[in-house]
Amino acid sequence: MAFPATIDQLPTPALVVERSVFDRNLAVMSEARPGDRLRPHVKAFKSTALAREMEAVGHHRFCTATVAEIEGLVGAGVGTDLLLANETLDYRRLGVLVEQGADITAAVDSDEILAAVIAGGVRQVLIDVEVGLPRCGCDPAQAGRLADKARAAGLEVRGVMGYEGHLMMVPSAERRRAKVETAMELLLAAHRDVGGDIVSGGGTGTYAVNEWVNEMQAGSYCLMDTQYATLEVPFEIALSVLADVVSVSPKGWAVTNAGLKAFGMDHGNPTWPDGDLRFCSDEHSTLSTDVTPLRVGDQVRLLPAHVDPTIAKHERMWVVDGEFVIDQWPVDLRHW
Amino acid sequence: MAFPATIDQLPTPALVVERSVFDRNLAVMSEARPGDRLRPHVKAFKSTALAREMEAVGHHRFCTATVAEIEGLVGAGVGTDLLLANETLDYRRLGVLVEQGADITAAVDSDEILAAVIAGGVRQVLIDVEVGLPRCGCDPAQAGRLADKARAAGLEVRGVMGYEGHLMMVPSAERRRAKVETAMELLLAAHRDVGGDIVSGGGTGTYAVNEWVNEMQAGSYCLMDTQYATLEVPFEIALSVLADVVSVSPKGWAVTNAGLKAFGMDHGNPTWPDGDLRFCSDEHSTLSTDVTPLRVGDQVRLLPAHVDPTIAKHERMWVVDGEFVIDQWPVDLRHW
Repeated sequence: MAFPATIDQLPTPALVVERSVFDRNLAVMSEARPGDRLRPHVKAFKSTALAREMEAVGHHRFCTATVAEIEGLVGAGVGTDLLLANETLDYRRLGVLVEQGADITAAVDSDEILAAVIAGGVRQVLIDVEVGLPRCGCDPAQAGRLADKARAAGLEVRGVMGYEGHLMMVPSAERRRAKVETAMELLLAAHRDVGGDIVSGGGTGTYAVNEWVNEMQAGSYCLMDTQYATLEVPFEIALSVLADVVSVSPKGWAVTNAGLKAFGMDHGNPTWPDGDLRFCSDEHSTLSTDVTPLRVGDQVRLLPAHVDPTIAKHERMWVVDGEFVIDQWPVDLRHW
Repeated sequence: MAFPATIDQLPTPALVVERSVFDRNLAVMSEARPGDRLRPHVKAFKSTALAREMEAVGHHRFCTATVAEIEGLVGAGVGTDLLLANETLDYRRLGVLVEQGADITAAVDSDEILAAVIAGGVRQVLIDVEVGLPRCGCDPAQAGRLADKARAAGLEVRGVMGYEGHLMMVPSAERRRAKVETAMELLLAAHRDVGGDIVSGGGTGTYAVNEWVNEMQAGSYCLMDTQYATLEVPFEIALSVLADVVSVSPKGWAVTNAGLKAFGMDHGNPTWPDGDLRFCSDEHSTLSTDVTPLRVGDQVRLLPAHVDPTIAKHERMWVVDGEFVIDQWPVDLRHW
């Protein structure tokens, strides 16, 4: 597909990925967690084109948070082992894909979900165990019972998963490691009752300290955001939102056309590296020009605080090498 | 188009509009601001189908925050007088529509934007005046000069606009009215220098107290959200996100499948009317079941804190009458 040659020609607001940084992030992770020891979480980036880049460095298993993400990966022929690392009520859309030969595994944390998985025609499961995050996952003491029930129904039980999401942002790596160990003891205890080959969990914040899972569910590491960048992880921010300055006030502010509809705002405002970002409105961000003067027509790059919901608001990412646009990745795994 | 008959059949998470409440909100506003005294702001709801409902009660002028919103309205044949109440760098997409006969007016707040409007082929402008919100809008003292320059270039200057967005949430109506009066004095002073028929401004929070504009740019009033509902306005919340309960813990929480990717989060968490919503993750919200027990498979309705960015995350709104689905409105004015 044809696209603009340089970033000054991009329609804004635009998601921009710095290719060299992205490549370094992939290289660092695939060195630490090669091949199937990483199961990248596509919820972070929602793009089959980006997932293909992960396949190119050796990762072939993927996990997702939505049925639509699995459908998109199957449709694009990306990945050879897909996990819905989440619960839903209706597995029939996945069952259709299983009938067609797709290799799909579902997380199961209750009798009701197990019944829905069976009814929907999915034949492989992981038992999803709660390890401290108040979200999905069964009591570790129930995991073996659920596994037995699944096997009795003819399903393949491939192992366990447990997401220590509450520990991603624990500030010191040492304290984080200690807390992750406690969480993973719960998961390993469940695994002893469940059996199977897979112990799945972790994320960008715990990838270096979680020695207990044999597959890591990280996704944000490839693009990063300002919140994850506060951790001492070796990944750099590859993602920004390109915006145009559309108004400048002599009172000391400038206004861009990237507002809160272009950013995930749950972790707070985006960051402007050259000065303070004062606030976001629907389609504007107001920047303080105390340090760096701006003119109408200037372009700025703003850094999202949370990568996942930011990307989910856009139709595509533009891949750039400095000022040059070298590729585009459709954000084709949006919605549900 | 065919759609599910009842809400328990809707794919979730789903935006749901309670028809009777929506109709009451439209009736209250069109009583207070009939016909062209209201210029509904489509940024709030991003749907030509919803805009048609506003046409049906007598409003034919619309304002927008993006070029894409104008393009969508023109494409759908909705509205007879469309205002881009915002600045952008490239007006050629609008100029193409003007060539084809569309009635489009652009807000102008600087010489650079005026030059871009002329270059793009838009022939009607409002002078956009800063009235206290640190965002777009020229110094009121510059408005007359910009108008003269526009007229000298052959443009029609239709009047002024000034958005008092910083005053929408001032808690008491009396204090709000006093502050709006001060802001509108700036706008009226600019109007004396600019001329033209239109004095445009205001929003849902100030619609009842802003006596000085002759067209009101409100949009959120039709659907509302929990933040606007804290004001003493006569509009009720018509919009919710329908979600499924996918996991329940004996420790006192339940998890739904509507997370922060289904809500605008800049005004905080959504509200669950039957208990506490503890937190949102990408694709989950965790509800406290201390007050209301929930089971896997239950449906809940969660109320967004900010209507505009919530709708921008969805592909459609389902219009309902209690448990019955009676229509769907595509959210067809998304992106840029």
